[in-house]
Amino acid sequence: LTGLIACMIDIAVEKLAGYKYLAVKQNIEKYTELGGLSISLILWAVLNSAFVMLGSLAVAFLEPIAAGSGIPQIKCFLNGVKIPRVVRLKTLVIKVFGVICSVAGGLAVGKEGPMIHSGAVVAAGVSQGRSTSLKKDFKIFEYFRRDTEKRDFVSAGAAAGVSAAFGAPVGGVLFSLEEGASFWNQLLTWRIFFASMVSTFTLNFFLSIYHGKPGQLSSPGLINFGRFDSDSVQYNLYEIPLFIIMGALGGVLGALFNIINYWLTIFRIRYIHRPCLQVMEAMLVAAVTATVSFAMIYFSNDCQPLGQDNTEEYPLQLFCADGEYNSMATAFFNTPERSVRSLFHNPPGTYNPVTLGVFTLAYFALAVWTYGLTVSAGVFIPSLLIGAAWGRLFGILLSFIASSQSIWADPGKYALIGAAAQLGGIVRMTLSLTVILVEATGNVTYGFPIMLVLMTAKIVGDYFIEGRSRIPGLQSVPFLHWDAPPTSHWLTAREVMSSPVTCFNRVEKVGRIVDVLSNTSTNHNGFPVVSDTTENDEPGKICGLILRSQLIVLLKHKVFVERASSRLSQRRLQLKDFRDAYPRFPPIQSIHVSQDERECMMDLTEFMNPTPYTVPQETSLPRVFKLFRALGLRHLVVVDNENRVVGLVTRKDLARYHVGKDGLEELHLAQT
Amino acid sequence: LTGLIACMIDIAVEKLAGYKYLAVKQNIEKYTELGGLSISLILWAVLNSAFVMLGSLAVAFLEPIAAGSGIPQIKCFLNGVKIPRVVRLKTLVIKVFGVICSVAGGLAVGKEGPMIHSGAVVAAGVSQGRSTSLKKDFKIFEYFRRDTEKRDFVSAGAAAGVSAAFGAPVGGVLFSLEEGASFWNQLLTWRIFFASMVSTFTLNFFLSIYHGKPGQLSSPGLINFGRFDSDSVQYNLYEIPLFIIMGALGGVLGALFNIINYWLTIFRIRYIHRPCLQVMEAMLVAAVTATVSFAMIYFSNDCQPLGQDNTEEYPLQLFCADGEYNSMATAFFNTPERSVRSLFHNPPGTYNPVTLGVFTLAYFALAVWTYGLTVSAGVFIPSLLIGAAWGRLFGILLSFIASSQSIWADPGKYALIGAAAQLGGIVRMTLSLTVILVEATGNVTYGFPIMLVLMTAKIVGDYFIEGRSRIPGLQSVPFLHWDAPPTSHWLTAREVMSSPVTCFNRVEKVGRIVDVLSNTSTNHNGFPVVSDTTENDEPGKICGLILRSQLIVLLKHKVFVERASSRLSQRRLQLKDFRDAYPRFPPIQSIHVSQDERECMMDLTEFMNPTPYTVPQETSLPRVFKLFRALGLRHLVVVDNENRVVGLVTRKDLARYHVGKDGLEELHLAQT
Repeated sequence: LTGLIACMIDIAVEKLAGYKYLAVKQNIEKYTELGGLSISLILWAVLNSAFVMLGSLAVAFLEPIAAGSGIPQIKCFLNGVKIPRVVRLKTLVIKVFGVICSVAGGLAVGKEGPMIHSGAVVAAGVSQGRSTSLKKDFKIFEYFRRDTEKRDFVSAGAAAGVSAAFGAPVGGVLFSLEEGASFWNQLLTWRIFFASMVSTFTLNFFLSIYHGKPGQLSSPGLINFGRFDSDSVQYNLYEIPLFIIMGALGGVLGALFNIINYWLTIFRIRYIHRPCLQVMEAMLVAAVTATVSFAMIYFSNDCQPLGQDNTEEYPLQLFCADGEYNSMATAFFNTPERSVRSLFHNPPGTYNPVTLGVFTLAYFALAVWTYGLTVSAGVFIPSLLIGAAWGRLFGILLSFIASSQSIWADPGKYALIGAAAQLGGIVRMTLSLTVILVEATGNVTYGFPIMLVLMTAKIVGDYFIEGRSRIPGLQSVPFLHWDAPPTSHWLTAREVMSSPVTCFNRVEKVGRIVDVLSNTSTNHNGFPVVSDTTENDEPGKICGLILRSQLIVLLKHKVFVERASSRLSQRRLQLKDFRDAYPRFPPIQSIHVSQDERECMMDLTEFMNPTPYTVPQETSLPRVFKLFRALGLRHLVVVDNENRVVGLVTRKDLARYHVGKDGLEELHLAQT
Repeated sequence: LTGLIACMIDIAVEKLAGYKYLAVKQNIEKYTELGGLSISLILWAVLNSAFVMLGSLAVAFLEPIAAGSGIPQIKCFLNGVKIPRVVRLKTLVIKVFGVICSVAGGLAVGKEGPMIHSGAVVAAGVSQGRSTSLKKDFKIFEYFRRDTEKRDFVSAGAAAGVSAAFGAPVGGVLFSLEEGASFWNQLLTWRIFFASMVSTFTLNFFLSIYHGKPGQLSSPGLINFGRFDSDSVQYNLYEIPLFIIMGALGGVLGALFNIINYWLTIFRIRYIHRPCLQVMEAMLVAAVTATVSFAMIYFSNDCQPLGQDNTEEYPLQLFCADGEYNSMATAFFNTPERSVRSLFHNPPGTYNPVTLGVFTLAYFALAVWTYGLTVSAGVFIPSLLIGAAWGRLFGILLSFIASSQSIWADPGKYALIGAAAQLGGIVRMTLSLTVILVEATGNVTYGFPIMLVLMTAKIVGDYFIEGRSRIPGLQSVPFLHWDAPPTSHWLTAREVMSSPVTCFNRVEKVGRIVDVLSNTSTNHNGFPVVSDTTENDEPGKICGLILRSQLIVLLKHKVFVERASSRLSQRRLQLKDFRDAYPRFPPIQSIHVSQDERECMMDLTEFMNPTPYTVPQETSLPRVFKLFRALGLRHLVVVDNENRVVGLVTRKDLARYHVGKDGLEELHLAQT
């Protein structure tokens, strides 16, 4: 399904953008001789704005969570943070519609990030065997209606999304592992890999039919970087320092991108928080994008001969001589994916250095402004495009400086390295990004330089972005990082835990359970069950753990001790009842409990987890952290050496110690 | 260093094998006309046997653990099982020498498996900053002198080995993760990846110098499958069922290989256990290999024209007409790596089907016999070669059957698929093997078929090999698998644990500690420390865990309570003292404790782990298993609900429940 969605997006964008370019091109050609090109400009701007308006309206008014690439949200989901509505069917529909509109509308965005989100939604939906939005239950896959199982499926879906977007199944697996999985499970990984492979295969198969060559399964991925041929694929030892310099440059530019964007985000949170303002901003950006493009095409005098084997789809003559085309127009009259490919593969001499320089600056500004708009869009492709442009420029300049022309003959190589550097500087991924880029270029030879470049970009970028203050107005997300913070080694569970804890007895009064669950100030999700009712307010001995959701199901089915005898003939509460209620457990307010029933008792013994993980009070924070991370815990009971409950550690308690480190994550979340 | 070792092995094998082939070739050419080719045969057999004898002598008499590929040993090491001498410097030296001899000796073996072992030894050695074999301590990296840190390094080393062997850095990372890591750590993975990349790069760089094209870094890996060109790389939907059939065939043949080898292993354990017998068997195999090759060349009448662009290094005319060469001779007068490459890439029509069929049968028999000899050698390349041969045959037969010649034009594709199927059927790896093969061919297009084929081969192979009885005479290895066995869900920690446990008091008599440690019948490595001395033999409350190695260091330094006051001026025992003793802690017998000292007391409070992981008795086995796997535990204390120690779960306790599932692992270990 992910592959099919990718295929659909690809074809829709191709068609819509094709019609648009054709219309604008004919219009320009018509008015080039007549004079009055401003009419063409207006046509272009209006077309762009119209597309973007549609997409932005859907996102802003129908499903704001569908804005942006969705990658930060999926990261949080895989990390164990619950974000409402992120894997709903409605989100998927709006996302797909939105991304088609924003790419067709000519914004400086890509369609790859949203694919990852789409894959995740598909996986979360299919694995449950029902859709709560559509109110349809297929009565299958009931086993998977649990948080952990669903998370596994979402990792596979995200991997399939990466795989479809970049034709990078292995990169997809690594992306999922890098972002989500904490416990490496061989079988799960293998399944994720299988999902990724099937996704690439499906996309490939249907695109091959679309392109009229059915069954030729050799062009993977939405973005096709084109194959670097084996003869030209080589680099030399002395080029490595150059690559590292480019990596550092990418880190600096990436940090600049993030910093400007950070201020923009704060501005947006303060002043542009109403949906109609957001739509208007998106339309404005679309119009400005068209204007800037037009101006650059208009003032550019970079004419290139129209070769026999020319692959440009919309060559625009404009003021060039006959048999030539305007090369700036090519850069803009293309989906960004195609432009990246041209920058990688066009033979030396295709681009004028000045054109490239101006293009880099303009596109950088547009991309910064665009990122964070209320539209569905990714930042991968614009980053790659900016990087490819200045990378190619770098390569051309090198060949000017060097005496021997032949060594630096291939500016396409530098375009690739520049693209990697810029992308790395902006998103700061390393492992999975290396593999994704290697797979997307279909070539392992550049693996080592790409890795060096991404590492340099990350180090340099982190230097600038660190120590940034928190974004005002954004609630903190309990995001757990890989390692406990280095300052935490002297802290113990005692300092970290929440205390006192609300506990229940094995056999508890219904009234008290309802009161505790209704108490909005605490809002806990896990409650230790203790064995002895202690008179003097001393904590009791731990004997289990029960979840809010379980209690709610119990209350709903009125599983009270007093009724047990009278309802012997009725069926017992089964695992199925818990699964059916997943994932939208009713709020406690919706469950009616009469005054009589409040006096009944509930026996929790049968339903609680009888052996929850516990730690003594003296356990160090890194050890607690490791338990949470390795076992995917949400609650950890802290006991004294008599096994009495003294506290409870939750994700929030742990995440508090990561203040200031999750800046980038927060920035990306704030933009949605 | 791993890259350098790989480079050295490659060059040494190339040179030695080159001299050998040249000598034999000249001799054959000389006697072809004279008659008396038996002299050539004898020369060949003697040369082979001499090489193999050298390698086998070194392995059998100096370091038997260096036999085989070393992969099962590294797997066990990464799993947490201690195997003596597996990461010593001496093992490395013997291994490298042994593998050069066995490959140069013309055995049906590869040099790739041993590279993985070599990488692991290098990593284990370098990370410790000293060599106990050479009695040299560089006083660096003392932080890494711990089991967990060393294991991390060994995973990186193994990955670097895979990377150097196959030019597959990502495959290397996945190999390490698949075999070793249980807790996925992003930073560690990134470091492993870095090690892999550097290893490929180094190998590449030095080989490029050796080949006279310094700095051209485009041929990765020891084995170079050659690049599949983009034009010819494609497959069609209707070929997928064929691929799956080939996968099943590979599974059957792989199972056959393993079953025959299993009987051979039992035979060897029973009758060929003396080193000199082992050396003689190895020499016999070498001579037979030469004879079989010679016979096949002699009786083959498959002559191929000697083209202009012919790349065969040792074309042998023998009885062919002028301007032609004997194609069977080509298959044998080559290192197996080159033969695989020829099978993948030679144009259609290069091989005669009968030649291929006979070759497959002969090589299969030789490889089965060879695998498990007392020589350093891997099974990857022979498997690939067998598979490539029958795969190509399959492709040729297809093109006979099909009416339209052009579709099936490329038998090289089928050779690749056959190679994957055969290798998958023998070694039963899936995820990492897919990635390794994809990287080694430098092409992602065949990723999906390769994955399908490996999966089919594994499923079919597992069908035959399952239920195999255990190997007699092999002690069981406490190897922990990924998941708890499915039958274990009704077992709890109470049934699994060892009980009663030997516990120590916080302040314990030295005499008792010495007695417990000297008691060879128990031989425990971890001891719970309990708080109260209980009079009536009741278990005490848990308050810590101390290891045998720690107790030995304490005894060695005589850290007794009675001496504390008198030795105030002396320095306290520090972490460094524990690290310096790692990894070869002296046995308890070597520590002299006088009768007086036996009466002293030792305070363990300061040195024990104060918050060991504990579980209640009722914890289910899968939950215990998950804790062991996720946290890399070796001991887990089982307590009752008063926190009193009632038992201890060790790896051995858990591994008992996997009886019968680790057959393949055991087989491979038995062969060393």
